[in-house]
Amino acid sequence: MSSQGPIIVLVRPQLGQNIGKTARAMLNFGLTELRLVAPRDGWPNPDAGPAASGADIVLETAKVFATTAEAIADCNLVYASTVRRRDLVMPVVGPPKMAEAIAAGAGRSAILFGPERSGLETEDVAFASAIVTVPINPKFGSLNLAQAVILLAYEWSRTQVLAQPTAKEPEAPAAHAQLEGLIGQLDAALEAVGYFHPPERADATRNTLRTILTKPGWSNREVQALRGVIRALTASPRPSGR
Amino acid sequence: MSSQGPIIVLVRPQLGQNIGKTARAMLNFGLTELRLVAPRDGWPNPDAGPAASGADIVLETAKVFATTAEAIADCNLVYASTVRRRDLVMPVVGPPKMAEAIAAGAGRSAILFGPERSGLETEDVAFASAIVTVPINPKFGSLNLAQAVILLAYEWSRTQVLAQPTAKEPEAPAAHAQLEGLIGQLDAALEAVGYFHPPERADATRNTLRTILTKPGWSNREVQALRGVIRALTASPRPSGR
Repeated sequence: MSSQGPIIVLVRPQLGQNIGKTARAMLNFGLTELRLVAPRDGWPNPDAGPAASGADIVLETAKVFATTAEAIADCNLVYASTVRRRDLVMPVVGPPKMAEAIAAGAGRSAILFGPERSGLETEDVAFASAIVTVPINPKFGSLNLAQAVILLAYEWSRTQVLAQPTAKEPEAPAAHAQLEGLIGQLDAALEAVGYFHPPERADATRNTLRTILTKPGWSNREVQALRGVIRALTASPRPSGR
Repeated sequence: MSSQGPIIVLVRPQLGQNIGKTARAMLNFGLTELRLVAPRDGWPNPDAGPAASGADIVLETAKVFATTAEAIADCNLVYASTVRRRDLVMPVVGPPKMAEAIAAGAGRSAILFGPERSGLETEDVAFASAIVTVPINPKFGSLNLAQAVILLAYEWSRTQVLAQPTAKEPEAPAAHAQLEGLIGQLDAALEAVGYFHPPERADATRNTLRTILTKPGWSNREVQALRGVIRALTASPRPSGR
């Protein structure tokens, strides 16, 4: 059982008040690590403190990042919280399954939440290995940010009482920065051979590849092996006649 | 399993805004019956509607009672939601046990919530057959009314078949023959560039690659996309100067 709870990552949050409410929701269930990606109104935000109702420690230690990639660079298991239908093909789990995976996993985990109005962009979701969706009234789905956070934090906290240590730790998935290295290397190699054509499809193609490569949760060792494969395939000149 | 969810009873609620947020939290998880005991500012309350974010049906059908006794007169199973220590000798359960009992019970059930500032009075709690307490961070317990409601409503919803998938079903993993095609293609490409060297390590290297590629459970579509990637990387002649 992991004693470290998930990191809560707010991607482009809009209102300071909602950041404060998120901090409060987190601390209610023992989560303390908050990361902010490009908060709309900068950071610190004077509206956050009053809304946190005393969860100041979460706000004071919050870290700000320019991009989602940087915010999750050290994370091994990333979930994207969203209710919108996606074109990405990616596992979709409910809160209990997410909580179990986080509690059972080695390394750090993170849960991404999008801006209040629009939710996560597809490019952000593509960083995740799975989508977590709270099963909500199909005729009235209106969870606000702090409510979504508190439900997932609550669900995680339940594993802290119930989970039993497993006999053998699985090899930790590679930290996201490692995976980015692989994705970047492949991207450069494909760019060089004119793979991303036509240009207007390039973003969608990149999202597809990112989803495919993010899915397995490869370990560092496995990521390194694949980088060797790409290196071999792109080494030039090729041995002639082979 | 009971198809009727619990009635949410707010005892002497103070702010119309919190009544609205409660309605929203309820409807998110399919609860529609709200009862108000002596709301401080009367009823209807103009602050409730905007905070309900569209859960108007819950507010419109809310019933007002003068006393807690009247509000629960038709209920068979009553829980009191509270975090304060009580002198009453009464069972204390967590949200899952409460939800199971409500789902299994015949007749109507209700959950009592107290005023925002002070919580339920002992006289109100005494109407209940059990106390329900959300296990919260002992060093920071600061659940507001709507948060307490949403956690209990969520927990109840788990006993129902509310869950609707909101994203695509994950695609089935490719049949093994498809995966073999990918592995074979990569193998041939790597063979051509002299990757399997020295020869005595070739079998172990192949096993490692097979393990890596078998891990993700890629769909047919994903396998085809990767085959396209390998094809692009191994196409010859390469565009010169790129």
